[in-house]
Amino acid sequence: MKKAMIKSEGNNYSAIEIGKLQDLAEYSFPHPKLRQDVPGKLFVGEILKSTGIEVSFQIMPVNSDIPFLHSHTNQEEVYIFIKGKGQFQVDNDLFDIQEGSIIRVAPKGKRTWRNNSDNIMILMVIQAKVDTLENYNVLDGFGVSGEILK
Amino acid sequence: MKKAMIKSEGNNYSAIEIGKLQDLAEYSFPHPKLRQDVPGKLFVGEILKSTGIEVSFQIMPVNSDIPFLHSHTNQEEVYIFIKGKGQFQVDNDLFDIQEGSIIRVAPKGKRTWRNNSDNIMILMVIQAKVDTLENYNVLDGFGVSGEILK
Repeated sequence: MKKAMIKSEGNNYSAIEIGKLQDLAEYSFPHPKLRQDVPGKLFVGEILKSTGIEVSFQIMPVNSDIPFLHSHTNQEEVYIFIKGKGQFQVDNDLFDIQEGSIIRVAPKGKRTWRNNSDNIMILMVIQAKVDTLENYNVLDGFGVSGEILK
Repeated sequence: MKKAMIKSEGNNYSAIEIGKLQDLAEYSFPHPKLRQDVPGKLFVGEILKSTGIEVSFQIMPVNSDIPFLHSHTNQEEVYIFIKGKGQFQVDNDLFDIQEGSIIRVAPKGKRTWRNNSDNIMILMVIQAKVDTLENYNVLDGFGVSGEILK
Protein backbone atom coordinates (compact mmCIF):
# COMPACT_ATOMS: atom_id res chain seq x y z
CA MET A 1 0.00 0.00 0.00
CA LYS A 2 1.28 3.44 -0.97
CA LYS A 3 1.89 5.98 1.81
CA ALA A 4 2.16 9.78 1.58
CA MET A 5 5.54 10.94 2.87
CA ILE A 6 6.93 14.19 4.24
CA LYS A 7 9.10 15.80 1.54
CA SER A 8 10.18 18.99 3.30
CA GLU A 9 9.49 20.41 6.74
CA GLY A 10 10.29 23.51 8.79
CA ASN A 11 9.12 25.31 11.90
CA ASN A 12 6.16 26.79 10.03
CA TYR A 13 5.27 24.15 7.47
CA SER A 14 5.10 20.55 6.33
CA ALA A 15 5.13 19.55 2.65
CA ILE A 16 4.12 16.15 1.31
CA GLU A 17 3.83 14.46 -2.07
CA ILE A 18 0.87 12.21 -2.81
CA GLY A 19 1.60 11.68 -6.52
CA LYS A 20 -0.68 12.00 -9.53
CA LEU A 21 -4.34 12.17 -8.59
CA GLN A 22 -5.23 9.52 -11.19
CA ASP A 23 -3.06 7.11 -9.17
CA LEU A 24 -5.03 7.57 -5.92
CA ALA A 25 -6.26 3.98 -6.27
CA GLU A 26 -2.83 2.92 -4.97
CA TYR A 27 -3.81 4.26 -1.54
CA SER A 28 -6.09 2.54 0.93
CA PHE A 29 -7.57 3.89 4.17
CA PRO A 30 -7.90 1.49 7.12
CA HIS A 31 -11.32 2.70 8.32
CA PRO A 32 -11.35 2.51 12.13
CA LYS A 33 -15.17 2.32 12.38
CA LEU A 34 -16.04 0.14 9.39
CA ARG A 35 -13.02 -2.03 10.28
CA GLN A 36 -12.16 -2.51 6.63
CA ASP A 37 -9.83 -0.91 4.13
CA VAL A 38 -11.35 1.72 1.86
CA PRO A 39 -9.40 1.60 -1.43
CA GLY A 40 -8.66 4.89 -3.20
CA LYS A 41 -9.09 7.03 -0.06
CA LEU A 42 -6.27 9.10 1.46
CA PHE A 43 -6.37 11.45 4.48
CA VAL A 44 -3.42 13.85 4.80
CA GLY A 45 -4.12 16.01 7.86
CA GLU A 46 -2.22 13.92 10.37
CA ILE A 47 0.90 13.58 8.21
CA LEU A 48 0.77 17.35 7.48
CA LYS A 49 0.43 17.99 11.24
CA SER A 50 -2.42 20.36 10.45
CA THR A 51 -4.22 21.88 13.43
CA GLY A 52 -7.30 23.37 11.76
CA ILE A 53 -7.88 21.48 8.53
CA GLU A 54 -8.34 17.85 7.52
CA VAL A 55 -8.11 17.06 3.80
CA SER A 56 -8.90 13.79 2.09
CA PHE A 57 -8.76 12.60 -1.50
CA GLN A 58 -10.85 9.89 -3.05
CA ILE A 59 -10.94 8.20 -6.43
CA MET A 60 -14.18 6.34 -7.13
CA PRO A 61 -14.37 3.60 -9.76
CA VAL A 62 -16.97 3.70 -12.54
CA ASN A 63 -20.49 3.12 -11.27
CA SER A 64 -19.63 3.05 -7.57
CA ASP A 65 -21.28 4.61 -4.54
CA ILE A 66 -20.95 5.22 -0.81
CA PRO A 67 -23.58 2.77 0.45
CA PHE A 68 -24.55 4.70 3.60
CA LEU A 69 -25.44 8.21 4.82
CA HIS A 70 -23.21 9.94 7.35
CA SER A 71 -23.26 13.07 9.50
CA HIS A 72 -20.67 14.81 11.66
CA THR A 73 -20.38 15.84 15.28
CA ASN A 74 -18.50 19.17 15.10
CA GLN A 75 -16.93 19.39 11.67
CA GLU A 76 -18.19 21.19 8.59
CA GLU A 77 -17.26 19.56 5.30
CA VAL A 78 -16.62 21.01 1.85
CA TYR A 79 -16.68 18.50 -1.02
CA ILE A 80 -14.79 19.48 -4.16
CA PHE A 81 -15.25 17.39 -7.32
CA ILE A 82 -12.30 17.71 -9.66
CA LYS A 83 -13.02 14.93 -12.17
CA GLY A 84 -15.98 12.87 -13.33
CA LYS A 85 -19.75 12.98 -13.04
CA GLY A 86 -22.21 11.68 -10.50
CA GLN A 87 -24.80 12.56 -7.90
CA PHE A 88 -24.71 14.00 -4.38
CA GLN A 89 -27.39 13.75 -1.70
CA VAL A 90 -27.90 15.90 1.40
CA ASP A 91 -30.96 15.03 3.50
CA ASN A 92 -33.80 14.72 0.96
CA ASP A 93 -32.11 16.62 -1.89
CA LEU A 94 -30.37 14.74 -4.72
CA PHE A 95 -28.49 16.64 -7.43
CA ASP A 96 -25.98 16.08 -10.22
CA ILE A 97 -22.27 16.79 -9.71
CA GLN A 98 -19.32 17.11 -12.05
CA GLU A 99 -15.89 18.73 -12.28
CA GLY A 100 -16.23 22.10 -10.52
CA SER A 101 -19.11 21.12 -8.21
CA ILE A 102 -18.45 22.24 -4.63
CA ILE A 103 -20.77 21.44 -1.72
CA ARG A 104 -20.62 22.74 1.86
CA VAL A 105 -22.39 20.42 4.29
CA ALA A 106 -23.21 21.38 7.90
CA PRO A 107 -22.38 18.75 10.54
CA LYS A 108 -25.90 17.34 10.86
CA GLY A 109 -26.56 17.08 7.09
CA LYS A 110 -27.03 13.45 6.08
CA ARG A 111 -24.85 12.96 3.00
CA THR A 112 -23.77 10.43 0.43
CA TRP A 113 -22.52 10.48 -3.20
CA ARG A 114 -22.06 8.22 -6.18
CA ASN A 115 -20.20 7.93 -9.43
CA ASN A 116 -22.93 6.89 -11.86
CA SER A 117 -20.76 7.29 -14.96
CA ASP A 118 -18.41 5.18 -17.04
CA ASN A 119 -15.35 7.24 -16.04
CA ILE A 120 -13.49 7.56 -12.76
CA MET A 121 -14.47 10.30 -10.29
CA ILE A 122 -11.97 12.23 -8.14
CA LEU A 123 -13.02 14.33 -5.17
CA MET A 124 -11.49 16.10 -2.22
CA VAL A 125 -13.15 16.55 1.16
CA ILE A 126 -12.15 19.36 3.52
CA GLN A 127 -13.08 19.25 7.21
CA ALA A 128 -12.82 21.98 9.84
CA LYS A 129 -14.66 22.80 13.02
CA VAL A 130 -17.95 24.60 12.37
CA ASP A 131 -18.30 28.28 13.35
CA THR A 132 -14.59 28.97 13.72
CA LEU A 133 -13.73 30.94 10.57
CA GLU A 134 -13.18 34.63 11.29
CA ASN A 135 -12.42 36.00 7.82
CA TYR A 136 -13.11 35.09 4.23
CA ASN A 137 -10.70 35.53 1.31
CA VAL A 138 -7.52 37.53 2.03
CA LEU A 139 -8.66 39.46 5.10
CA ASP A 140 -6.66 37.29 7.53
CA GLY A 141 -3.45 37.70 5.50
CA PHE A 142 -0.90 40.46 5.25
CA GLY A 143 2.19 41.16 3.18
CA VAL A 144 5.54 40.69 4.90
CA SER A 145 9.09 41.66 4.09
CA GLY A 146 11.74 39.08 3.32
CA GLU A 147 13.84 37.70 0.52
CA ILE A 148 12.10 35.89 -2.31
CA LEU A 149 14.44 33.00 -3.13
CA LYS A 150 15.34 31.94 -6.69
CA MET B 1 -16.31 38.47 -15.30
CA LYS B 2 -17.56 34.99 -14.46
CA LYS B 3 -19.22 34.47 -11.06
CA ALA B 4 -19.77 31.23 -9.14
CA MET B 5 -23.48 30.70 -8.50
CA ILE B 6 -25.51 28.70 -6.01
CA LYS B 7 -26.92 25.64 -7.78
CA SER B 8 -28.80 23.96 -4.94
CA GLU B 9 -29.31 24.83 -1.29
CA GLY B 10 -30.99 23.43 1.81
CA ASN B 11 -30.97 23.83 5.58
CA ASN B 12 -27.75 21.85 5.87
CA TYR B 13 -25.89 22.62 2.67
CA SER B 14 -25.03 24.92 -0.21
CA ALA B 15 -23.86 23.62 -3.60
CA ILE B 16 -22.17 25.72 -6.27
CA GLU B 17 -20.70 25.16 -9.73
CA ILE B 18 -17.46 26.86 -10.69
CA GLY B 19 -16.98 25.10 -14.05
CA LYS B 20 -13.96 23.32 -15.49
CA LEU B 21 -10.77 24.09 -13.58
CA GLN B 22 -8.88 24.84 -16.80
CA ASP B 23 -11.32 27.75 -17.30
CA LEU B 24 -10.47 29.44 -13.97
CA ALA B 25 -8.86 32.28 -15.92
CA GLU B 26 -12.40 33.55 -16.58
CA TYR B 27 -12.63 34.52 -12.89
CA SER B 28 -11.04 37.55 -11.30
CA PHE B 29 -10.74 38.46 -7.61
CA PRO B 30 -11.09 42.13 -6.64
CA HIS B 31 -8.31 42.17 -4.01
CA PRO B 32 -9.39 44.51 -1.19
CA LYS B 33 -5.85 45.18 0.02
CA LEU B 34 -3.91 45.35 -3.25
CA ARG B 35 -6.84 47.32 -4.71
CA GLN B 36 -6.51 45.52 -8.02
CA ASP B 37 -8.13 42.56 -9.73
CA VAL B 38 -6.26 39.26 -9.49
CA PRO B 39 -7.09 37.29 -12.65
CA GLY B 40 -7.58 33.52 -12.34
CA LYS B 41 -8.33 33.61 -8.59
CA LEU B 42 -11.66 32.54 -7.08
CA PHE B 43 -12.70 32.36 -3.41
CA VAL B 44 -15.82 30.30 -2.67
CA GLY B 45 -16.29 30.39 1.14
CA GLU B 46 -18.65 33.34 1.27
CA ILE B 47 -20.92 32.07 -1.50
CA LEU B 48 -20.95 28.61 0.13
CA LYS B 49 -21.82 30.26 3.47
CA SER B 50 -19.10 28.16 5.08
CA THR B 51 -18.43 28.80 8.76
CA GLY B 52 -15.15 26.95 9.28
CA ILE B 53 -13.47 26.69 5.88
CA GLU B 54 -12.36 29.10 3.17
CA VAL B 55 -11.39 27.59 -0.18
CA SER B 56 -9.81 29.36 -3.13
CA PHE B 57 -8.75 28.24 -6.59
CA GLN B 58 -6.04 29.77 -8.70
CA ILE B 59 -4.78 29.21 -12.22
CA MET B 60 -1.32 30.62 -12.85
CA PRO B 61 -0.07 31.37 -16.36
CA VAL B 62 3.21 29.95 -17.65
CA ASN B 63 6.24 31.50 -15.95
CA SER B 64 4.31 33.60 -13.43
CA ASP B 65 4.82 34.24 -9.73
CA ILE B 66 3.33 35.85 -6.64
CA PRO B 67 5.67 38.82 -6.29
CA PHE B 68 5.47 39.13 -2.49
CA LEU B 69 5.60 37.07 0.70
CA HIS B 70 2.57 36.89 2.98
CA SER B 71 1.67 35.59 6.43
CA HIS B 72 -1.62 35.15 8.30
CA THR B 73 -3.07 36.35 11.57
CA ASN B 74 -5.13 33.37 12.77
CA GLN B 75 -5.61 31.07 9.81
CA GLU B 76 -3.65 27.97 8.87
CA GLU B 77 -3.40 27.31 5.14
CA VAL B 78 -3.12 24.09 3.15
CA TYR B 79 -1.96 24.50 -0.45
CA ILE B 80 -2.90 21.71 -2.86
CA PHE B 81 -1.32 21.64 -6.32
CA ILE B 82 -3.44 19.75 -8.82
CA LYS B 83 -1.75 20.64 -12.12
CA GLY B 84 1.62 21.94 -13.29
CA LYS B 85 5.10 22.37 -11.88
CA GLY B 86 6.79 25.15 -9.95
CA GLN B 87 8.39 26.17 -6.68
CA PHE B 88 7.11 27.02 -3.20
CA GLN B 89 8.87 29.02 -0.50
CA VAL B 90 8.22 29.09 3.25
CA ASP B 91 10.58 31.28 5.28
CA ASN B 92 14.06 30.37 4.02
CA ASP B 93 13.14 27.02 2.42
CA LEU B 94 12.50 26.77 -1.33
CA PHE B 95 11.36 23.48 -2.87
CA ASP B 96 9.86 22.10 -6.06
CA ILE B 97 6.13 21.44 -6.38
CA GLN B 98 3.99 19.55 -8.87
CA GLU B 99 0.66 17.77 -9.15
CA GLY B 100 0.12 16.09 -5.78
CA SER B 101 2.25 18.48 -3.72
CA ILE B 102 0.44 19.54 -0.53
CA ILE B 103 1.85 22.08 1.91
CA ARG B 104 0.52 23.07 5.34
CA VAL B 105 1.69 26.53 6.40
CA ALA B 106 1.30 27.89 9.95
CA PRO B 107 -0.03 31.48 10.21
CA LYS B 108 3.34 33.13 10.70
CA GLY B 109 5.13 31.26 7.89
CA LYS B 110 6.24 33.68 5.15
CA ARG B 111 5.13 32.10 1.88
CA THR B 112 5.12 32.58 -1.87
CA TRP B 113 5.03 30.35 -4.97
CA ARG B 114 5.70 30.43 -8.68
CA ASN B 115 4.94 28.62 -11.89
CA ASN B 116 8.35 28.32 -13.51
CA SER B 117 7.19 26.02 -16.29
CA ASP B 118 5.78 26.31 -19.79
CA ASN B 119 2.39 24.91 -18.77
CA ILE B 120 -0.39 26.35 -16.65
CA MET B 121 -0.47 25.63 -12.90
CA ILE B 122 -3.67 25.05 -10.91
CA LEU B 123 -3.77 25.14 -7.12
CA MET B 124 -6.28 25.26 -4.32
CA VAL B 125 -5.77 26.99 -0.98
CA ILE B 126 -7.69 25.96 2.13
CA GLN B 127 -7.90 28.26 5.15
CA ALA B 128 -9.21 27.51 8.66
CA LYS B 129 -8.49 28.84 12.11
CA VAL B 130 -5.36 27.33 13.61
CA ASP B 131 -5.68 24.93 16.57
CA THR B 132 -9.39 24.21 16.14
CA LEU B 133 -9.44 20.72 14.62
CA GLU B 134 -10.54 18.07 17.11
CA ASN B 135 -10.34 14.91 15.03
CA TYR B 136 -8.52 13.65 11.95
CA ASN B 137 -9.99 11.37 9.27
CA VAL B 138 -13.42 9.86 10.01
CA LEU B 139 -13.44 10.17 13.81
CA ASP B 140 -15.85 13.13 13.80
CA GLY B 141 -18.32 11.31 11.53
CA PHE B 142 -20.95 8.67 12.19
CA GLY B 143 -23.33 6.63 10.08
CA VAL B 144 -26.99 7.67 10.13
CA SER B 145 -30.21 6.06 9.00
CA GLY B 146 -32.23 7.48 6.13
CA GLU B 147 -33.27 6.76 2.57
CA ILE B 148 -30.59 6.80 -0.09
CA LEU B 149 -32.29 8.43 -3.09
CA LYS B 150 -31.96 7.17 -6.67
